[in-house]
Amino acid sequence: MVTRESFHNSIKELEEKMKTMSDLAVSSLENAFEAFKAKDVELALKVIEEDEVVDDLEIEINHFIIWLMAKEQPVARDLRRIIGALKISSEIERIADFGVNIAKSTIKIGNSHSLVNISILEKMKDISVTMLQKGLHSFLDGDLKLAKEVGELDDEVDDYSSEAYKTITGYLKEHPEETDQLVQFLLINRYLERTADHITNIAESAAYLIKGQMYDLNS
Amino acid sequence: MVTRESFHNSIKELEEKMKTMSDLAVSSLENAFEAFKAKDVELALKVIEEDEVVDDLEIEINHFIIWLMAKEQPVARDLRRIIGALKISSEIERIADFGVNIAKSTIKIGNSHSLVNISILEKMKDISVTMLQKGLHSFLDGDLKLAKEVGELDDEVDDYSSEAYKTITGYLKEHPEETDQLVQFLLINRYLERTADHITNIAESAAYLIKGQMYDLNS
Repeated sequence: MVTRESFHNSIKELEEKMKTMSDLAVSSLENAFEAFKAKDVELALKVIEEDEVVDDLEIEINHFIIWLMAKEQPVARDLRRIIGALKISSEIERIADFGVNIAKSTIKIGNSHSLVNISILEKMKDISVTMLQKGLHSFLDGDLKLAKEVGELDDEVDDYSSEAYKTITGYLKEHPEETDQLVQFLLINRYLERTADHITNIAESAAYLIKGQMYDLNS
Repeated sequence: MVTRESFHNSIKELEEKMKTMSDLAVSSLENAFEAFKAKDVELALKVIEEDEVVDDLEIEINHFIIWLMAKEQPVARDLRRIIGALKISSEIERIADFGVNIAKSTIKIGNSHSLVNISILEKMKDISVTMLQKGLHSFLDGDLKLAKEVGELDDEVDDYSSEAYKTITGYLKEHPEETDQLVQFLLINRYLERTADHITNIAESAAYLIKGQMYDLNS
């Protein structure tokens, strides 16, 4: 029979993998945005290359979870925790992909310049990074307050996103010669808004773990 | 002890729920696109409203899977099948969301007219619907050939998407007065490309079930 302690250790190992994955996703977003601001194509290419590590880690987590489920056959809260980890690792992989998307847009923008004000995009990125940290910890620590904060921050990102959309399309109408890069800015705006949505999904998985209804398996 | 037959029946029930969800996602895409073509705001609103049914069904499938896992404690291929169902239902929910996104863009476009040629977008939608049907059946029937076809169709959608992007941005440069609606067309192009990506994820889950190893059908 498997001991409770061995299960506890496996869960710890799983959570460490999730933290590593989350750190990598934060790096992806931070580096992609740095590349975008500095028009640094080298750094953008690095972001794209390094995404493979996140992809591999998601596969590793998937395999680990399937192994853990088969070995431990968890029920109730343990089962919800593992299902949550599975869903969250898939969300984190997508979040790192948005870093890749921003990096690809950066490469397309190349050396083109624009005077449109995109400082809001940086705010959105900063909030997203905070959200990801709060979202993951709401799950790891079972902290519902953190999960709710993530939802509130997502509303902020949505508001910023609408504002950025108006600013960029307004500018585009006056500067059609900048269409190519402005469309990339609009896409980056969209990527950041979607990043925040995916982080909100993480917080929802956390809330489900914390508040989820119990099943009567004896009936 | 749970009999093999009871497990088999539960899996059948789960698969029926997945088929229903997939049919709803197809309706979401078809109706959203119909609304987009006809500038039918009423129909677009209906697509947004009806998305709740898909969301509820995903939650129902999640609960069913957690119940099934706790009850049956499946291992090996059975476990992979259930994990696959969990991942795929989450992908289908996202695909229906893209229908909602297209519907929202349709509402924003309203009555504005444009002469830009967007017939490619319809092709992308048609291919996506085919892909979803093939992707789900590759999972349900364990058909690796269908999964590979999904990967090939995704390449087609990617090519069409690049073409649509060029057409729309090219037109936008000449018609900055149509910025608002052309940006929505660009977003719809992006939604369709992402729809195809999510369907490719379904085919990857199918391939994982069949072969026991992960495939990247996007590359």
